[in-house]
Order: sequence, then structure tokens, then C-alpha cells
Amino acid sequence: DFLHALHEIVPAFGASTDDLERCRLNGIVDCGERHKHIYQRAMLLVEQVKVSKGSPLLTCLLEGPAGSGKTAMAATVGIDSDFPYVKIISAETMIGLSESSKNAQIVKVFEDAYKSQLSIIILDDIERLLEYVAIGPRFSNLISQTLMVLLKRLPPKGKNLMVIGTTSEVGFLESLGICDAFSVTYHVPKLHKEDAKKVLKHLDVFTDYDIDSAAEALDDMPIKKLYMLVEMAAQGSTGGSAEAIYSGKEKINLNHFFDILGDVVSLRV
Amino acid sequence: DFLHALHEIVPAFGASTDDLERCRLNGIVDCGERHKHIYQRAMLLVEQVKVSKGSPLLTCLLEGPAGSGKTAMAATVGIDSDFPYVKIISAETMIGLSESSKNAQIVKVFEDAYKSQLSIIILDDIERLLEYVAIGPRFSNLISQTLMVLLKRLPPKGKNLMVIGTTSEVGFLESLGICDAFSVTYHVPKLHKEDAKKVLKHLDVFTDYDIDSAAEALDDMPIKKLYMLVEMAAQGSTGGSAEAIYSGKEKINLNHFFDILGDVVSLRV
Amino acid sequence: DFLHALHEIVPAFGASTDDLERCRLNGIVDCGERHKHIYQRAMLLVEQVKVSKGSPLLTCLLEGPAGSGKTAMAATVGIDSDFPYVKIISAETMIGLSESSKNAQIVKVFEDAYKSQLSIIILDDIERLLEYVAIGPRFSNLISQTLMVLLKRLPPKGKNLMVIGTTSEVGFLESLGICDAFSVTYHVPKLHKEDAKKVLKHLDVFTDYDIDSAAEALDDMPIKKLYMLVEMAAQGSTGGSAEAIYSGKEKINLNHFFDILGDVVSLRV
Amino acid sequence: DFLHALHEIVPAFGASTDDLERCRLNGIVDCGERHKHIYQRAMLLVEQVKVSKGSPLLTCLLEGPAGSGKTAMAATVGIDSDFPYVKIISAETMIGLSESSKNAQIVKVFEDAYKSQLSIIILDDIERLLEYVAIGPRFSNLISQTLMVLLKRLPPKGKNLMVIGTTSEVGFLESLGICDAFSVTYHVPKLHKEDAKKVLKHLDVFTDYDIDSAAEALDDMPIKKLYMLVEMAAQGSTGGSAEAIYSGKEKINLNHFFDILGDVVSLRV
Amino acid sequence: DFLHALHEIVPAFGASTDDLERCRLNGIVDCGERHKHIYQRAMLLVEQVKVSKGSPLLTCLLEGPAGSGKTAMAATVGIDSDFPYVKIISAETMIGLSESSKNAQIVKVFEDAYKSQLSIIILDDIERLLEYVAIGPRFSNLISQTLMVLLKRLPPKGKNLMVIGTTSEVGFLESLGICDAFSVTYHVPKLHKEDAKKVLKHLDVFTDYDIDSAAEALDDMPIKKLYMLVEMAAQGSTGGSAEAIYSGKEKINLNHFFDILGDVVSLRV
Amino acid sequence: DFLHALHEIVPAFGASTDDLERCRLNGIVDCGERHKHIYQRAMLLVEQVKVSKGSPLLTCLLEGPAGSGKTAMAATVGIDSDFPYVKIISAETMIGLSESSKNAQIVKVFEDAYKSQLSIIILDDIERLLEYVAIGPRFSNLISQTLMVLLKRLPPKGKNLMVIGTTSEVGFLESLGICDAFSVTYHVPKLHKEDAKKVLKHLDVFTDYDIDSAAEALDDMPIKKLYMLVEMAAQGSTGGSAEAIYSGKEKINLNHFFDILGDVVSLRV
Ligand SMILES: Nc1ncnc2c1ncn2[C@@H]1O[C@H](COP(=O)(O)OP(=O)(O)OP(=O)(O)O)[C@@H](O)[C@H]1O
Ligand SMILES: Nc1ncnc2c1ncn2[C@@H]1O[C@H](COP(=O)(O)OP(=O)(O)OP(=O)(O)O)[C@@H](O)[C@H]1O
Ligand SMILES: Nc1ncnc2c1ncn2[C@@H]1O[C@H](COP(=O)(O)OP(=O)(O)OP(=O)(O)O)[C@@H](O)[C@H]1O
Ligand SMILES: Nc1ncnc2c1ncn2[C@@H]1O[C@H](COP(=O)(O)OP(=O)(O)OP(=O)(O)O)[C@@H](O)[C@H]1O
Ligand SMILES: Nc1ncnc2c1ncn2[C@@H]1O[C@H](COP(=O)(O)OP(=O)(O)OP(=O)(O)O)[C@@H](O)[C@H]1O
Ligand SMILES: Nc1ncnc2c1ncn2[C@@H]1O[C@H](COP(=O)(O)OP(=O)(O)OP(=O)(O)O)[C@@H](O)[C@H]1O
Ligand SMILES: [Mg+2]
Ligand SMILES: [Mg+2]
Ligand SMILES: [Mg+2]
Ligand SMILES: [Mg+2]
Ligand SMILES: [Mg+2]
Ligand SMILES: [Mg+2]
Repeated sequence: DFLHALHEIVPAFGASTDDLERCRLNGIVDCGERHKHIYQRAMLLVEQVKVSKGSPLLTCLLEGPAGSGKTAMAATVGIDSDFPYVKIISAETMIGLSESSKNAQIVKVFEDAYKSQLSIIILDDIERLLEYVAIGPRFSNLISQTLMVLLKRLPPKGKNLMVIGTTSEVGFLESLGICDAFSVTYHVPKLHKEDAKKVLKHLDVFTDYDIDSAAEALDDMPIKKLYMLVEMAAQGSTGGSAEAIYSGKEKINLNHFFDILGDVVSLRV
Repeated sequence: DFLHALHEIVPAFGASTDDLERCRLNGIVDCGERHKHIYQRAMLLVEQVKVSKGSPLLTCLLEGPAGSGKTAMAATVGIDSDFPYVKIISAETMIGLSESSKNAQIVKVFEDAYKSQLSIIILDDIERLLEYVAIGPRFSNLISQTLMVLLKRLPPKGKNLMVIGTTSEVGFLESLGICDAFSVTYHVPKLHKEDAKKVLKHLDVFTDYDIDSAAEALDDMPIKKLYMLVEMAAQGSTGGSAEAIYSGKEKINLNHFFDILGDVVSLRV
Repeated sequence: DFLHALHEIVPAFGASTDDLERCRLNGIVDCGERHKHIYQRAMLLVEQVKVSKGSPLLTCLLEGPAGSGKTAMAATVGIDSDFPYVKIISAETMIGLSESSKNAQIVKVFEDAYKSQLSIIILDDIERLLEYVAIGPRFSNLISQTLMVLLKRLPPKGKNLMVIGTTSEVGFLESLGICDAFSVTYHVPKLHKEDAKKVLKHLDVFTDYDIDSAAEALDDMPIKKLYMLVEMAAQGSTGGSAEAIYSGKEKINLNHFFDILGDVVSLRV
Repeated sequence: DFLHALHEIVPAFGASTDDLERCRLNGIVDCGERHKHIYQRAMLLVEQVKVSKGSPLLTCLLEGPAGSGKTAMAATVGIDSDFPYVKIISAETMIGLSESSKNAQIVKVFEDAYKSQLSIIILDDIERLLEYVAIGPRFSNLISQTLMVLLKRLPPKGKNLMVIGTTSEVGFLESLGICDAFSVTYHVPKLHKEDAKKVLKHLDVFTDYDIDSAAEALDDMPIKKLYMLVEMAAQGSTGGSAEAIYSGKEKINLNHFFDILGDVVSLRV
Repeated sequence: DFLHALHEIVPAFGASTDDLERCRLNGIVDCGERHKHIYQRAMLLVEQVKVSKGSPLLTCLLEGPAGSGKTAMAATVGIDSDFPYVKIISAETMIGLSESSKNAQIVKVFEDAYKSQLSIIILDDIERLLEYVAIGPRFSNLISQTLMVLLKRLPPKGKNLMVIGTTSEVGFLESLGICDAFSVTYHVPKLHKEDAKKVLKHLDVFTDYDIDSAAEALDDMPIKKLYMLVEMAAQGSTGGSAEAIYSGKEKINLNHFFDILGDVVSLRV
Repeated sequence: DFLHALHEIVPAFGASTDDLERCRLNGIVDCGERHKHIYQRAMLLVEQVKVSKGSPLLTCLLEGPAGSGKTAMAATVGIDSDFPYVKIISAETMIGLSESSKNAQIVKVFEDAYKSQLSIIILDDIERLLEYVAIGPRFSNLISQTLMVLLKRLPPKGKNLMVIGTTSEVGFLESLGICDAFSVTYHVPKLHKEDAKKVLKHLDVFTDYDIDSAAEALDDMPIKKLYMLVEMAAQGSTGGSAEAIYSGKEKINLNHFFDILGDVVSLRV
């Protein structure tokens, strides 16, 4: 299955998977059917790009709410491909650069990829690459134009490239016309309570008695936020109980967990 | 007929048709009456430009939805003319250039064309040359002005020029007044199911039994997307079946084809 | 009369009429009363500027739809005056220049004119000089301000200047206040069917039997477009018949003419 | 009276009245009560600025439709004062300068004025100095701010300054708050038919019989436009009659006059 | 009382009161209770800043219609304090400077103040410092941000600072959030007729019989405009009577006064 | 309890607490339950960041009306942590810097923090860092983008970082998407009358008889404004009584207190 598949494939020589591993700090656990399905389809595209003649360029967008697992998913596909060139383009390494420097860096990664026979490029948080802000509307049209051209420009003969984009502002990307520039788009959802329960079980920090109430309260929560909430609650109401809980000696107090949840979710209501 | 005509004419010495050939990666197949008609009319303009005295400049715009075959059509007209100078102007070769550099490059191509007795210039994806983005509205007014002047400026005495533009944002071009700057405009449509069937038949990847259902499902699809969908489906649901299918040993599984179609068309609905 | 007057006046030494001649590639034919009237009034202004003391500066704007004959008319007035300095200012010679360079060139032409006792300056396609675009609204306010000042600034003592402007965006010029800066404005119209018939007769490419139907179909057509349509139709439906038609051996096939007309006029409807 | 007063006062040594004289090419004639009243009030301010201690700075705005006589009026006040420093600031001498150069020139004129004991500065066509355009709204805020400060800043001790502004865009100036920066504002109107008749009589180009009809037709006309119309009509319908008319040998043909008037006033209706 | 207090306090050594004196060209007269109250409260703040430990920074805004006496009031408080550092920041000394130079000058004045144990800074006409214009909205956000930070930033230990702002665009300042950055705001009003009468009595230019009608007509007039009107009227309808009136030999003619008032107040109605 | 906790923890060697102390000029007094609760939760996060493995970055936003005590609270958490690196980023030290310099300074503080094993960064008045102004909307998108990336970017392995933001423009931050970039948000409120009474008691400047009325009048007042009002009132209506009151010899006159309150609260009503 999905997680199993992950471990079967050894990353090809040459691909630096260090950066990619940092993208999934909490590992990859089974968190529901939808995540699994998307992973499988993305891996099919990986296969297609290997053999294709008519489509030397395949592009795929992962969109979904903040923290739903898009970056970890893209990184996993990159790691699980056996491609010699896998590279993530992220705003984190370009803070404070001028628009044109950012643009040049992005183009550079594509030019490099064109030299490898099989490549994957991850465009992480495209809205951040575009310097998107909700009001305005302001954004880098320079980079927007570049992406639209790069997502259509064929690699040189004999080279094949897959591009995976991620975004939590799919509406914005649609309004720019960038969504349509991708061949396929997958929606990475928040967790349903059953999914949340799977993850909680794996973490094993609640008593069997509490786990259903906890999962229920986490319905419609992004997986990344779930991890943070659990860690905050593990601290205990007076601090210091984290070690005991993660070592399995204690369990999280459900009331404290709800308190923390309340702070995070509805404080300003 | 249309396809036949294509092969009768040998490209004149001096015109680099390499770039043009890359514009029709999937070749040119018969995909319906409308495409054929436009090709024929465009070739008439090619004839006219050769003999004209009163109109040393003829301009023609191909507009239609993304992937409907505009660029391939324009490239084909360029190849099939026997003109010594045929050049495509595309955003792909100008990524990251400043507005004024892009502008200068465009003007340069026209100046070069003015030196040849018979020339064709393809302005590909004009909205991309103009750095158009759907929200804003932002675009390069510098280049917009340049195009409007170039589309009206007569070549020097004794030189004749045909300009073919392509765009999938005809509404935008109309709002700029660029449409009216072209002498004629042709609408390149998506495929009807009969047209899709013709293309599928040519590809020969469905059983005779499935081909009608497949064509029906592809009604109102741009030809470029049709090619991509077929290739994705040829991969099979577990990957690896592409070779067998293209070599004719297997056919595409219709259910898997519909699955893929669903991913691409209605995922976010 | 109008056309006769044209040939009576020999252009004065010093005025380069070459550029002006290129502005009327299809010559000047009788195309109706309105065009004639405007020509006569403009020639009266030419006379007035010669003798005036109180008004050393006269300005006149020709506005009308694209292709209605404005530039050819202005060029004809320039040629038919016996003024030593006649100059056309057009965007064609300033492509890609910076706003301030364009501005400087415009001012330069006026400064030069101030040195001649009698001058005519043609400001051709003012909206293009202003880098007007329908959406925005964007345009060069620098040049707009310059024109408004130049259209009001008196030449030095003893020098007299006539300025003829042309535009197909009279609404835009009005909104800027540039229209009011001209002393007089004339509307150059499209052709009525009687006018179109006059021109067709002169061209002699239809049979006597067809000419009325053709003229009828050309009602409300700009003269420039009429010339282009006739030339396209003269090509014939399979190409190559242009020579026979212009030499008078054949006539244009009316059905093909209507086909062409349909392509140009209503294709996207 | 008004016109008489004009001739009694000899311009003081030092003031260059050449530029000012060019502002009233058609001289100053009696054209009605309102013009007279404004002139008198403006001359009272001239007197006040001479003797004032509490108000070393007086500012006055002449606003009215294009061609109503504002600049000629301001120039006349400047000439008729006996002030050693009288200077007109106009966009005509600053075409194509950068915003900051224009600004510096304006400030320079004020600094120079501060050195003279009695000065008049005419800010002619303030909207043009501000690079105003009706759509936008765009204008030079740099110069707008400078004017608002200069119209309030006191000259050094012992120096007195009068500033006369003119504008035909009073609504715009009001919206900027520049109107309120002036101490007084006078509206310079178009002519009533009685006023027009006075001017026509003075010109003596109509027969006694025609003069009333002509004046009637000129009701609500700016004086500057009246002069231009009369000159155009004096040309005659076939040209060449101007000399005879101004020398008094002939009179203007009333029908031709109405023709010309129609061209100018209602052509585009 | 208010005016008396003014003369009791000798300006401390080191404070240049020259600039401040020029801000009250017509002196300071009793013009009603409100002006007096604001003066007294401002002087209390002066006292507080001297002794405060918890609030080393006090800020106070005087807002009111143009000419209501804000600048004169602020200058008087500055003069009447016995502070070694009193400085006025005004747009008059920064005409034509770039935004950043202006900003630097403002910051410089604050840095200087931080060196003195007790300081007053007057920010005169804040809207002008911000290059405010009613339409747009355009203004210097650089300076706006600087002011908001400076109005909150504590001086170094042991230094105390009072900031007095003036503005006639309080709505604009409110919309920027600058009003809220001041600790207290006082509204400086126009004059009521009783207040106007007090000022007129002090000036002694009307007969006892006329003074009430004159004061009545001046109801709701800013004090600065009152002074200007009186001076214009003192000129007399034919000029030259100012000396006689100010020396007490004659009085102002009430009808002429009303004429002048009409010109100023309602001319464009 | 809260205040007690404050004194138990000795600031760790290396953290410069001088700047932080200046942020609470009036000390920290008990002013109600809500302030206490937020302090405790913030200290829990401090504990969590020390031991966490899965979340090396914790971020927390304090939002509330101007003067409600956000900065003092953040500074207190910084002081009370035993972290070697505690740094406040504030607009006060960056006045007049260019956008990119400010940006670079902010990034620098984060880079420095990444070198320390445990760090706290206070982003004080985020809206001021962003050069926010209520109308426009204008702000630094450069800094906005930088913050959004920095609030998500993980420190290097083995380094842990807590970021505390403060703002009184939470709506603006929400519209930018910056709120969602913080893990938790706490609302720091104005004082209720009971809270105000606690503070007044601590100050001991009212008679026992007056304290309830005073507290009642201060209902819904930010704590910072309360301190300022008390100091203004302590001045007395004629000045000079502050010393007597703070030394306990006199009490504040309630009527004068209400007068001052009226000036500050409702002057412009
Ligand atoms: N099956 C899974 N798929 C994705 N993420 C998983 C899965 N199992 C565990 N995780 C963990 O969940 C977290 C997902 O966070 P991630 O950064 O990928 O979300 P995101 O959608 O990219 O968030 P953002 O919108 O902030 O960019 C990671 O820490 C990852 O280790
Ligand atoms: N008769 C045909 N006309 C056009 N294209 C054809 C035809 N037959 C096959 N094709 C193939 O269809 C594809 C058309 O893609 P093309 O890039 O021309 O579309 P487009 O309209 O320019 O797309 P876009 O809007 O993305 O620029 C090409 O791969 C071409 O080889
Ligand atoms: N009487 C005429 N008046 C004007 N043009 C004529 C006349 N007779 C023939 N022509 C021809 O008609 C054409 C008019 O085109 P012209 O470029 O002057 O139109 P235009 O209104 O300036 O167009 P645009 O709006 O594109 O600038 C020219 O080729 C000219 O030779
Ligand atoms: N009494 C008069 N007052 C003003 N102008 C007069 C008078 N008598 C004759 N004239 C003439 O009328 C013309 C007025 O033109 P002027 O340029 O002053 O108008 P304007 O209002 O400044 O126009 P614009 O709005 O274009 O700046 C001048 O040619 C002047 O010589
Ligand atoms: N009691 C008074 N308070 C203020 N000004 C007075 C007083 N008595 C007389 N004056 C005079 O009234 C005038 C007030 O003008 P001032 O420039 O202070 O007004 P302002 O409100 O600052 O105007 P603006 O809005 O144009 O900046 C000064 O000339 C001053 O000498
Ligand atoms: N428990 C407390 N919490 C916070 N501040 C307190 C407390 N007790 C006393 N204070 C004092 O209240 C004042 C709070 O002001 P502070 O600058 O922190 O407010 P702020 O919300 O940051 O204001 P602003 O919105 O202007 O930035 C400080 O002077 C501080 O010394
Ligand atoms: Mg992500
Ligand atoms: Mg294309
Ligand atoms: Mg033209
Ligand atoms: Mg004028
Ligand atoms: Mg003032
Ligand atoms: Mg704060």
C-alpha cells in the first residue's frame, strides 16, 4: 500500500533528499483514503513521464487548506521517484531577494532540470513565490508570467520533466490562470474524524477511553495543526509533562486538551 | 486536401523550420472541417501577400480556447509557405527579460523581416507577450503599443509581410484594440465528438466497441488535452502498459480512461 | 474640383513629400461629398494661416473610424499647400522610444517649424502618440500635457503654423481635453453605398451587373477596408486570379466576394 | 474708466513687459461690465499690497471658461501696476521638463520676487502647471504642494507680493484645496450678446444690418474664440478676401459666417 | 488671565523665538473663551512635562478650520514655556525637498530635542508635511509612519518632550490614525459674532454705529480671514484710504465692507 | 501567582533586558484575570519550546486595542524566560530606513536567533513594521512576505525559537493572512471597572470615597491611557500639585479628574 510503497523505492544517486526529508518532520502516517489516492495518482504520473514521448512535460498541482499535508506529499513523491534530479523551489531560501533575482533562481532550477533526463521540480507554496497577499491585489506578475511559460515550455528533446506545485490559495491561482496551466489538480483535504483517529492511534497519547472524544473534536482539522495541538496539550496545564507522555508513562488530560483547543480555535470569537 | 497540401510544399531555403516543427509535437491530423477551412484561408492570404501591390502587409489572428491547435496551425502555414523568412515570436525565449528587451527583440524580428522580400512572422500567445494576467489589469502597455504600430506599419517598398497572431484571450485583446488591428480573425474551436472520433481512430488505442463512448466523453475537448488524456490513460491503472498499447498489443481500458478524465475535468467540483 | 485641385498645386521646394505620399498608397479618388467638403475647408485654413496676423497658429482635428481616410486626407492637404515645411509626426518612427524621447522628438518638430515662415505639422494617430489603450486608463500624460501646451503656444513673431491632428479615438481625446485644444474638428466618415459604388467603379473589378450588390454590401465600410476586401476577393477562391482581374481580363466572383466579406465582418458572431 | 486707466500708467523700470504684451495679441477692448469690475478690484489689491503691513502677501485667482480673457486680464494688471518685478509663470516655457525642474523654476521665481520690494507673480493656467488631465486623476502633487505652501508663505520682512492665478479648471483646483489657498477668486465669464456686439463694433467687419444677427449668434462665446471665428469668416468662402475686409473695403458675408460657426460649434452633433 | 500670562513669562535663553513671533503677525488679542481655555490647558501640559516621571512624552493636537488661529496659539505656548528647546517644523522650509529629506529633517529635530532636558516641538500643518491632497488619496506614507512612531517613542531617560501638532484636516489625520497617536486633541473654532466684535473693538476701524452690523456679518469667520477682510476694506473703494483709517482719522465705509465681503465669500455662487 | 512568578525567575546571562525593561515604564501590576491567564499560557509555550522536538518553532500573537498592555506583557514573558537570546524588533529603531533595510534587519535578528539554542523574538507593533496606514491600502508587501515566510520557516536542527507578535490592528493582519501564520492568538483587553479599581488602589491617588466613581469612569479604558490620565489629573487645575499627590500628602480632586477625562475622551463630539 501507500506507506509500504514509500519504503520500497531507494532514492536514486544524485538527488539530494535532505531538504525533502525536512518537509515531513512528523513523518508520513496513514491519514485516510484521499491522501493515499493522490499519492498513487502522482506516482502514476512519475511512471508516465519516464516513458512518454508525446508529453515530455507533465505538471500537477496539489491544493488544499493550510497544513493539510501538501508539501509533505510532494516531497514524498519526489523521494519515492527514482529520478536523478529532484529539487524543491521554496520562498524560504529567497527571503528578501528582489523580484528579478527570485525569478532568475526559478528559471535556473528549470534550466538545470533540462540537463537531466528525468527530473522533478516542486514549486512549493506558489502563492508565496508570487508574493501574494489577500488584499491589494498585489503579487509578482514577473514570476507569474515566468511560471505560466515554464509550465508550458517543453524540455529539450530527450529530456522529461514533472512539475508538482503546492498552494493553499487555489482561488488566487485560478484567478491568475495558473491553475489551468497545470495538467491535473488534486485537492488535499483536512482530516475527517476517522482520519484523525488513525493518526491519534499512531501517536498513542490518549487513553483508549478518551481517543474518540479527542478525534471527534479534531474533525475537519489539518494534519499539521493536529500535531501541534497534541504537542501543546502534552505539555500539561502546569508544564513539564511532555516527556512522561511521549514515553508512554502518562496520557494527555482530556480537559486540558479541550482548553488548548479552545485557545487555538475560537479565542477571538 | 488540407493534409495533403501540407506535404506538397517544400520549405524554402533559409527558413529555419526546426522551431516550427516543435510546435506540432503530435503531428497534424484531420480533426474536422473548421480547422481545414482556416488552413485553406490562411494559405490564400499567403498567396495574396506574394502578388499584392496595394497591401504589402497582411495580418491574421487565430484565436480559440487553450490547446485548440492554434500554434500548430500557424506553424504549419509558416512551413507550407515557400517564404524565405518565417519566424515565431514566443514568450518562451524571452523569460525574465525586461519589458524593453522583449520589446526590442520583437521589433528586431520585424526589422529583419523587412529585409526579406516575403516573410511570415508568428506572434504566438500574444497575451503572454503582453504579460497579461486575468486580475489587475496588468500588462505591458509598451509591447501593446508596439504591436499596434507594427501591425499597421507598412514594410519598405517591394517587401511583403504576413503576420499570424495566436491567442487564447481574445476578449483581452479586443479590450486593448489589438483584435481590430488584424485584418482577419479566425476562431479555432475545440473538437466536436465527430472530430474527436476522427483523431481517436487515427491513434487506434481504443477497441472499436469503446471508441464511440470515448469520443462522446471527449466532446468539446481541445485537441491538445485529448492527446494528454489518452497518454495518461494508456499508462494503465497500475502503470507500465503504455508500450503495449501504443504498439497495438493492448487497448486502453475504458473505465480507467473515465477515471482519468474525471480527475482532470471535475476534481474540484 | 477636389481631385483636380490636388494636381494643380506643385509642392514647394524643401518639403519632403515622400513620407506624405506613402500615406495614400491607394491614391486619392472621389469618395463622396463629405470628404470633398473637409478637404476644401482644410485648404481654406491653409490660406488663412498664410495671411493671418491675429492668429499665427491654426489647429484642426480630423477624427473618424479606423480606415476612414484621415491620414491620407491630412497628407494631401500637406502636399497641396505650398508650405516650405510640412512634417508628419507618427508613432511608427518612434517605436520603443521612452516617453521622454518621444516627447523630445515632438517638441523638436515644433521648434523646427517655428523657424519656417509657413509650416504644417501633422500629428498622426494622436491616441498612438499618447500610448492610449482602451483599458486602464493608461496613457502618456507627459505627451498629453506637451500637446495641450503646443496646441496653444504661439509661434515666434512673423512665423505661422497650421497643425492637423488625426485620431480614431475622439472620445478619449475629448476626455483628455485635447479636442477642445483644437480650433476646429471635422468628422471623416465611413462610406455610404453610393460612395462605395464610386470607388468600385473607379477600380473596375466587378461586372456592371454585380456592382450594385457589391456596393450595397459595402455600405458603412471605411475606404481602407474596402480596398483590402477587394484585393482579398481578387485572389479568387483557389488563389492566383488577381493578375487577371486587375488587368481587366476577369471580374471578381460575387459569391466569393461575399464569402470573404463574411470572414472579415462576422466571423466571431 | 477701465481702458483709459490702462493707458495712464507707465510700466516701471525693470519689469519686462514683452512677455506680458504677447498675452493680449488682440489688444484690450471694452467687452462688458464684469471684465471691467474685475480689473478694478484687482487694481485695488495692487494698491493694498503697496501699503499693507499686516498682509505682505495678497493672492487672487481669475477663473473662467477657456478663452474668456483671464490671461490677458492678468497681464494687463501686471503691466498697469508700477511694480519693479512682474513675472508670468507658464507651462509654455517648461515643456518636457521633469516635475522637479518645473517645481524648482516656480520656487526660483518666488525667491526672486522676495528680493524686490513690490512684486507680482502670474501663475498662468495653474491646471497646466499641475499637469492636470481630466481622467485619472493624475497631476503633479509635488507642484500642488509647492503652490499651496507658496500661496501661504510670507515674504521676508519689508517685501510685499501679489500673486494672480488663472485657471479654466476651477473645479479641479477646488478639489485640491488650491482655490481656498487664494484670498479672493473672480469668475471671468464668456460674452453676452451685448458684450459681443461691443467687440464686433470695434472690429467693424460686419454691415450695420448684419451686426445684430452676428452678435446674437455669438452669445455665450468666449472672447478669444470670437476673434478666431471672425478671422476665419473674413477669409471668405473661396479664400483671399481677408485683406479687403480688414481694410474696410468689404464686409463679411453673414451666411459664410454662419457656415463657419456651424463647423466650429456643432460639427459632431 | 490668558493675555496677561503671555507677558509675564520671559522666553528662556537658547530658544529662538524669532520664527515663532512671525507666526502671529497680527499679535494675540482676546477673541473668546474657547481660545483662552485651550491656551490654559496647553500651559498645564507644559507644567506636567516639566515634573513628570511616568510620561516623559506628552503630545497635543490643535485642530480647526483654516485660519482659526492654531499656529499662532501653538507658537504662543512655545514662547510662553520657559523651555530651552522650542522648534517649529513647517512645510515652508522644506519646499521641493524629496520625501526622504523631509523625513530626515523631521527626525533630526526630534533627535536634537532629545538632547535638551525640556523641549517643545511644533508640527505645523501636519497635512502639509504629509503632502496631503484632497483627491487621490495621495500622501507621504513614509512621513506618516515616522510621525506615528515619533509620537510614541520615549525620549532618553531624564529628557522630557512636548509635541504640539496643528492641522485643518483633522478628518484626514483621523483616517490615518495620527489623531489617536496624540494624547489630547483640542478644537480651535472660528469666531462667534461676540468674539468678532471683541477683535473689531480692539482694531477700532468701524464707527460705534457700524460695529454691530460688521460683527454680525463676520459671524463664523476665522480670525485670520477677519484681519484680511478688514485690511481690504480699509483700502476704500477707490484705494488710498488705509492710512487715514489705521491712524484713526477715518472709519471704514460699511457698504464698501459688505461689497468686499461679498467678493470673498460668495463670488462663485 | 502571575506577579510573583515574575520575580522568581532571574534573567539568563546574555539576554539584554534593558530594552525590555523600558517597555514597562509603569511596572507590572495586577490588572485582572485575563492579563494573568495570557501570561500563564505564554509561559507554558516557553516551556514547550524548550523540550519540543516536533515543533522547533512556536509562534504567538498578542492583539488588542492601543495601550492595552501588549508590549509590556511580551517584554515580561521575554524577561521571565531563561532564554539566552531575547530580542525585540520594533519600528522605533528603524525610522526612515528603506523597506529593504528594514527587511534585512528583521531577517538578521532571525538569523542570529537561529544560532542560539533557545530564543525569543518579539515582533512589536507588527502593523508599524509593515508601515500600515488605515487608508489606501498601503503597506510593505516585502516585509509582509518576509514575516509570513519567517513565521513558518523551521530553525536549523537542534535550535528552538519562540516568536511573540503584538498588534493593535488585528483586522489588518487577518486580511493579510498574517494572523493565520501564528500558532495561537490571544486578545489583550481594555480594563473593566474592577480591573481599573485594582490599579487605582495600587496607585493610591484617590480618596477611598472617590475611588469607586473614578474606577467607574475608567471602565473600558486601556491601562496605558489610565496611567496618563491619572498623571494629568495629578497636576491639578492650576498646575504644581503632582508632587504632593504622589507623595501621598494630597489626593486628586475628582471634579478636575472628570474635566481632564472629558477633554481626552469627548472633546470633538
Ligand atoms: N500522510 C501524510 N501526508 C502528509 N503529511 C503527513 C502525513 N502523515 C504525517 N504527515 C505530517 O503532517 C505534516 C504536514 O505538513 P505540511 O507542511 O506538509 O502541510 P502543508 O499542507 O504543506 O502546509 P502549508 O499549507 O502550511 O504549506 C508534516 O509534518 C508531515 O510530516
Ligand atoms: N489538425 C491539427 N491542427 C492543430 N493541431 C493538431 C492537429 N492535429 C494534431 N494536432 C496536435 O494538437 C496539438 C495542438 O496544440 P497547440 O499547441 O497547437 O495548441 P494551442 O491552441 O496553441 O494551445 P495553447 O492555447 O496552449 O497555446 C499539437 O500537439 C499538434 O501536434
Ligand atoms: N478621397 C480619399 N480620401 C482618403 N483616402 C483615400 C481617398 N481615396 C482613396 N483613398 C485611400 O484610402 C486609404 C485611406 O487610408 P488612411 O490610412 O488614410 O485611413 P485612416 O483613416 O488614416 O486609417 P487609420 O484609422 O487606420 O489611421 C488610403 O489608402 C488612400 O490611398
Ligand atoms: N477686455 C479684454 N479682456 C481680456 N481679453 C481681451 C479683452 N479685449 C480683448 N481681449 C483679447 O481676448 C483674448 C483673450 O484671450 P486670453 O488668452 O486672455 O484668454 P484666456 O481666458 O486666458 O484663455 P485660456 O483659457 O485659453 O487660457 C486676447 O487675445 C486679448 O487680446
Ligand atoms: N487669540 C488669538 N489666537 C490666535 N491667533 C490670534 C489671536 N489673536 C490674534 N490672532 C492672529 O490671528 C491670526 C491667526 O492665524 P494663524 O496662522 O495662527 O491661523 P491658523 O489656524 O494657523 O491658519 P491656517 O489654517 O492657515 O494654518 C494670526 O495673524 C494671529 O496674529
Ligand atoms: N499587568 C500589566 N500588563 C501590561 N502592562 C501593565 C501591567 N501593569 C502595568 N502595566 C503598564 O501599562 C502600560 C502598558 O503599555 P504598553 O505599551 O504595554 O501597551 P500596548 O498595548 O503595547 O500599547 P500600544 O498599543 O500603544 O503598543 C505599561 O506602561 C506598563 O508598565
Ligand atoms: Mg506546505
Ligand atoms: Mg499555442
Ligand atoms: Mg491614419
Ligand atoms: Mg490663458
Ligand atoms: Mg497654521
Ligand atoms: Mg505596544
